[in-house]
Amino acid sequence: MNEKRKNSTRSGSNFKWVGEVTPRPDGVDKVTGRARYGDDLKLPGMLHARVLRSPHAHAKIVSIDTSKASALEGVKGVVTYRDIPDHPLATPPYPPIIQDFHDLSRNVMARDKVLYDGHAVAAVAATSEAVAREAIKLIQVKYETLPHVLDPFEATLSDAPILHEYQFTEGADPDTSKPSNTFRTLSGERGNLVQGFSEADVIIEREFSSQPVHQGFIEPMACVASASEDGSVELWTSTQGHFVARGLLSKLLNLEISKLRVTASEIGGGFGAKTTIYGEPVAIRLSQKTGRPVRMTFTRSEVFRATGPAAGSRCRIKVGIKSDGTITAGDAEIWYQAGAFKGAPVGRALDTFFSPYNIKHIRAAAHDVCVNRPKVAAYRAPGAPMATWAMEAVLNEAADVIGIDPIDLRLRNAVKEGDTSLKGTKHGRIGLIEVLEATKNHAHYTAPLGRNEGRGFAVGYWLHGGGLSSASVILQDDGTVNVATGSPDIGGSRSSMRAMAAEELGIDVKLIKPIIADTGSLPYSYQTAGSRTTYATGMAVVNAARDVIDRLRALAATKWDIGVKDVRWDDGHAIPADKYEGEISPLSLKELAEVAMKMGGAIAGHSEINASGQGAAFCAQLVDVCVDPETGRVTPIRHTVIEDVGRAISPDYVEGQMQGGAVQGIGWALNEEYIYNENAQLQNTGFLDYRMPVASDVPMIDTVIVEVPNPNHPYGVRGVGEPPLVSAPAAVANAVENAIGTTMSHLPLTPPKILRAIGETIPEAAE
Amino acid sequence: MNEKRKNSTRSGSNFKWVGEVTPRPDGVDKVTGRARYGDDLKLPGMLHARVLRSPHAHAKIVSIDTSKASALEGVKGVVTYRDIPDHPLATPPYPPIIQDFHDLSRNVMARDKVLYDGHAVAAVAATSEAVAREAIKLIQVKYETLPHVLDPFEATLSDAPILHEYQFTEGADPDTSKPSNTFRTLSGERGNLVQGFSEADVIIEREFSSQPVHQGFIEPMACVASASEDGSVELWTSTQGHFVARGLLSKLLNLEISKLRVTASEIGGGFGAKTTIYGEPVAIRLSQKTGRPVRMTFTRSEVFRATGPAAGSRCRIKVGIKSDGTITAGDAEIWYQAGAFKGAPVGRALDTFFSPYNIKHIRAAAHDVCVNRPKVAAYRAPGAPMATWAMEAVLNEAADVIGIDPIDLRLRNAVKEGDTSLKGTKHGRIGLIEVLEATKNHAHYTAPLGRNEGRGFAVGYWLHGGGLSSASVILQDDGTVNVATGSPDIGGSRSSMRAMAAEELGIDVKLIKPIIADTGSLPYSYQTAGSRTTYATGMAVVNAARDVIDRLRALAATKWDIGVKDVRWDDGHAIPADKYEGEISPLSLKELAEVAMKMGGAIAGHSEINASGQGAAFCAQLVDVCVDPETGRVTPIRHTVIEDVGRAISPDYVEGQMQGGAVQGIGWALNEEYIYNENAQLQNTGFLDYRMPVASDVPMIDTVIVEVPNPNHPYGVRGVGEPPLVSAPAAVANAVENAIGTTMSHLPLTPPKILRAIGETIPEAAE
Repeated sequence: MNEKRKNSTRSGSNFKWVGEVTPRPDGVDKVTGRARYGDDLKLPGMLHARVLRSPHAHAKIVSIDTSKASALEGVKGVVTYRDIPDHPLATPPYPPIIQDFHDLSRNVMARDKVLYDGHAVAAVAATSEAVAREAIKLIQVKYETLPHVLDPFEATLSDAPILHEYQFTEGADPDTSKPSNTFRTLSGERGNLVQGFSEADVIIEREFSSQPVHQGFIEPMACVASASEDGSVELWTSTQGHFVARGLLSKLLNLEISKLRVTASEIGGGFGAKTTIYGEPVAIRLSQKTGRPVRMTFTRSEVFRATGPAAGSRCRIKVGIKSDGTITAGDAEIWYQAGAFKGAPVGRALDTFFSPYNIKHIRAAAHDVCVNRPKVAAYRAPGAPMATWAMEAVLNEAADVIGIDPIDLRLRNAVKEGDTSLKGTKHGRIGLIEVLEATKNHAHYTAPLGRNEGRGFAVGYWLHGGGLSSASVILQDDGTVNVATGSPDIGGSRSSMRAMAAEELGIDVKLIKPIIADTGSLPYSYQTAGSRTTYATGMAVVNAARDVIDRLRALAATKWDIGVKDVRWDDGHAIPADKYEGEISPLSLKELAEVAMKMGGAIAGHSEINASGQGAAFCAQLVDVCVDPETGRVTPIRHTVIEDVGRAISPDYVEGQMQGGAVQGIGWALNEEYIYNENAQLQNTGFLDYRMPVASDVPMIDTVIVEVPNPNHPYGVRGVGEPPLVSAPAAVANAVENAIGTTMSHLPLTPPKILRAIGETIPEAAE
Repeated sequence: MNEKRKNSTRSGSNFKWVGEVTPRPDGVDKVTGRARYGDDLKLPGMLHARVLRSPHAHAKIVSIDTSKASALEGVKGVVTYRDIPDHPLATPPYPPIIQDFHDLSRNVMARDKVLYDGHAVAAVAATSEAVAREAIKLIQVKYETLPHVLDPFEATLSDAPILHEYQFTEGADPDTSKPSNTFRTLSGERGNLVQGFSEADVIIEREFSSQPVHQGFIEPMACVASASEDGSVELWTSTQGHFVARGLLSKLLNLEISKLRVTASEIGGGFGAKTTIYGEPVAIRLSQKTGRPVRMTFTRSEVFRATGPAAGSRCRIKVGIKSDGTITAGDAEIWYQAGAFKGAPVGRALDTFFSPYNIKHIRAAAHDVCVNRPKVAAYRAPGAPMATWAMEAVLNEAADVIGIDPIDLRLRNAVKEGDTSLKGTKHGRIGLIEVLEATKNHAHYTAPLGRNEGRGFAVGYWLHGGGLSSASVILQDDGTVNVATGSPDIGGSRSSMRAMAAEELGIDVKLIKPIIADTGSLPYSYQTAGSRTTYATGMAVVNAARDVIDRLRALAATKWDIGVKDVRWDDGHAIPADKYEGEISPLSLKELAEVAMKMGGAIAGHSEINASGQGAAFCAQLVDVCVDPETGRVTPIRHTVIEDVGRAISPDYVEGQMQGGAVQGIGWALNEEYIYNENAQLQNTGFLDYRMPVASDVPMIDTVIVEVPNPNHPYGVRGVGEPPLVSAPAAVANAVENAIGTTMSHLPLTPPKILRAIGETIPEAAE
């Protein structure tokens, strides 16, 4: 860890805690197994739930007979779609993230049809896991199977099986149109494409495809629900946002928000997939029906079959470029698999892959297409990595064709302050040029390569989120502090919140204990997603800490009987104005904490904000791989991630985010895919068959932290977690192309594809 | 319930929710068994703890050998006093409630000596309750027994066994004095006693004694502790104050407050006894030693033997009175059993029994005396009922002697606004006269009595607490509301908080869900004790709700683009000033809640206060009993409680408090006592032998709610819970005296005592 940090080119700062590496607040509890995850709570009389899932990719549900299951001793309750309220179909205009409760209800529990292998059909709650497992085998479901479609492009063809008879492409007239798997096409355009391409010296056009990949979090979905007859529900769940889960559940199940109290358990990874709900509504309904607490934990197989992967994609992209490296035009069309229900991440994708570059003439369109796969969920920069891979691959090819250094090509076109993205986001101070320069100057870029080795490069862009966050900073009477937020800590937010509070208050981080408060105890906070937490929740913490300081200044002023304007806060102390020097001694935060309990009451600061003023972050990656020409196996041998993080509040966690994104990108590029049989039944439902990179598969990931502070945040924070995945698959694939000397257009780059690309005969067993 | 309420003489109000009976917020969960008490949490790897307790009332600990217990399979940890930090002895000046960590450490786990039967000596944590029980039998303790003393007066005699060689009476010179069981004597005086008694026509002097009585809560002490190697501790416990428990534990065990997160479980009664700590520090140390969560639940026997009863007492009281009923002088000396460690409730007692009356010349002294019994804990108006019984008995006798109606006697001397208590509390608007008049006018007072029946009357006084409280009122985006406080709900505080928030916000109580937040999520709140919660925490809730309203007005003003001064709040709506009528429509709280999420952020109000401006409450009781002259058995047949509650926020709970206090007082008067054998070992350690009144033992308790609003509280609240116990034993005993025609001076008035008093031969078996 230290070794890596030496390589960082972080800007100096005068901060004491912000930017420092401190012991992990959650470290001990996680390594000792004490941290309580979704599955770790037991309540008296608790039942165990299991879900019966469809073996068919597409079928009508003719009947469900649960009588035998209900009659089994130990079974206390059974639910089917009849127990999940139906909701009307959402109507335009659709928000960027479509929360269609009509669809959500059907994804949680299949209603008329099953739409993918693993689709939930019924669930039972029983006195033991064993009884529950036995019981779901006794549920008799009659299906009438239907033809299925798995590929997003094929799903748009006129003869494709239609998933939803009620779904028409947005803008189409239902009276004159046929139902469509394409929910909508988002597009954007600026300039004049014809002119743009006419100005180009080189035009490159390619087609790409990528497979759905799973977020692969270690902890499966797990929750415990306890519902009361009075309408109240308590829920413990492994979630990226317990307030968001509460909102979804209250609307789906018609519960009053204040009566649904959700506690976020510790979370064993989410990467976007735990921003929605799966088992929770079923567990709640089972609890309501049985009057007992119900625990529901998915198996790994259920996680793969029925929880959201990232969208698989098809992409056609065409770029025009002058021989001096100026990109004159870009045109792209993308098909994203939404899975069984609408809502692929087409909006964010559109604004991502062209965005690092100033291109006068561009057009992009993205289709949101339903297929017989699990409904996709967010996955770390949703929609960006696949399209970015396409764009970056084309640019790398273009650099090669016109004979320009690939980084110089990017530098020539790089966006900077005042430039605007396709969707109209006007950039403030951004650090793309700094990132590119740091990359070019890095020793990795010019290091010699060996035989069968290749080097890849790519850059990626992501605009982090803002939004609603709340925080309470609570001063305890011994001078220690709790920082309560509503943001589940996935990537180190406890550490960041602690550092910012310590910096503001002027006390040691050791005195601060961060807390994730439940939804009844703290005002609303949006989820830990979109790289927003350290930015937005951090801003709330800073506000709340400043509120504490104001109260402490007022307290000192009262105690000293002087005006509050004559009290300043410095380094953890209330300090009287110079004119009182010698007369009044400063009071420390600890001393004031004691005083407070005897005077006006406990001291706390609170903040509820809707954080705007997002910032763009850029991440470049250099990757070396070695390709074995005999087996087609690709071994990553060196990997450097260079990211503008604005300000690294907790540099060790920032490095962890950069490394984690890179490793996931290696998986996207080389290994991961869903393998279906001819009946569209998922064949690789475990980590043995669904091959994610493990530690031994990857080299040490080197990180270079670039800090171009975001002027919208008090400490200059930018979103850190997502950009490293955006450019990783592109960089890895580019390294493979460089090693084998040919372009590659279909991820993952498995050994058979490599062998085929280099003209080798593929052993039968490898296909 | 409705039947009773008809009898209430409550003042009318214009409130919509304050004063209304609404469904209990905790009702369903309690009747279904869903409410989670201290024992209801299970954590992975949780161990079960049991405590080894002393069989001796007083003995030196020569040695403790835990090796055999440690070696037993399944035993994971053992603690003795060596694991509980020692603390220096507290030094004067002592605060009213002495928190001596030197003593607390020794009460939690005996250090050099055991001081009462049941004193904790060691504890084990094992994989099951059975193993833990087995293990404590294997702990070998060598004792050297010492003589013991149980009676507080005898403990003051020069030849009494001394409990603490280090304890000298406050003010005594340790160099020249001998150690003493009397920790201190508090006293107060005003006027001139000699003059006062010389003005009296009648002087009555009597001596009284009462036995320790247990709070008798249904739920035994129960907690689960989970300690981390990083110094953090999580604790779930059945407590009247999780913030206070946190404070005691952090100091006792040298933990940082912010790292000790305490959640109050639902609580099955406390009545004062759960304002301190017993098993919690032991459970925490066992968790720290074993690295695993530890659950500790006391048996009923442990509860009786080792958790605080109320002090037993001796009391000598002398009152001078003119033949017109004017009380001219009062002189009292009281000895209170502190139990094994100093800290009997002498201070509050002193200010209670003379306080309903304007007496020019008074003196009172109260001795705080250690005896070989469990350390007393608070019990509903600590110290007041026993001394009040003595004073009221003497007054009733005086009324009889001078031939004046006992209520008229009180009316002649009753304190009113502007009068001052012995300790100097100057009363604001108080309702003693209203209570006495309501009592005199009640049909019960003049109802005919049958054969062997008698009627008793007494009045009691209690000054409720104020202090630190916090609240957050959180508006959810569907217009429902959470009210988060740090006050465990023992007697209906959820309902009161909800009613006051509804009243302020102008919304239906059904939309509000009260929450008890943990110590990490909300600023400090003092415990639910001293009848302070509806008063002080209620004030914080009102403040926080008004904070919400201010924010909603500001939000409406922003939305309407008008000045905030032009927006008022009425009946749940933001309403523009009249000049905008017709142009701008009012916005409801629900509409504004939706707007808020799209604008500046979630809406919440917060308040941290130190509530001052307490109020005095008075409670009178009329009791009819029937005494069986053959068996000496006393049967209460009619009971009316008349109390000035200031304002009954939740009248049904107020009635419950009045009834509960009365029933406990019946127990004090007639049944309850600790029975020790010659070795001072407690013989009645279960509810079969320690006879508390059950429903079939008592008549329906009629209640008369008098409302003389407390000007210090926004809704006029006074402390409700304690006064009904203050006057209950006195009224019951007075009824017995009236029935049998003789005075009674030693509680409880068991059948043998009655038979003796009426000159009957007592069957041997009854003694």
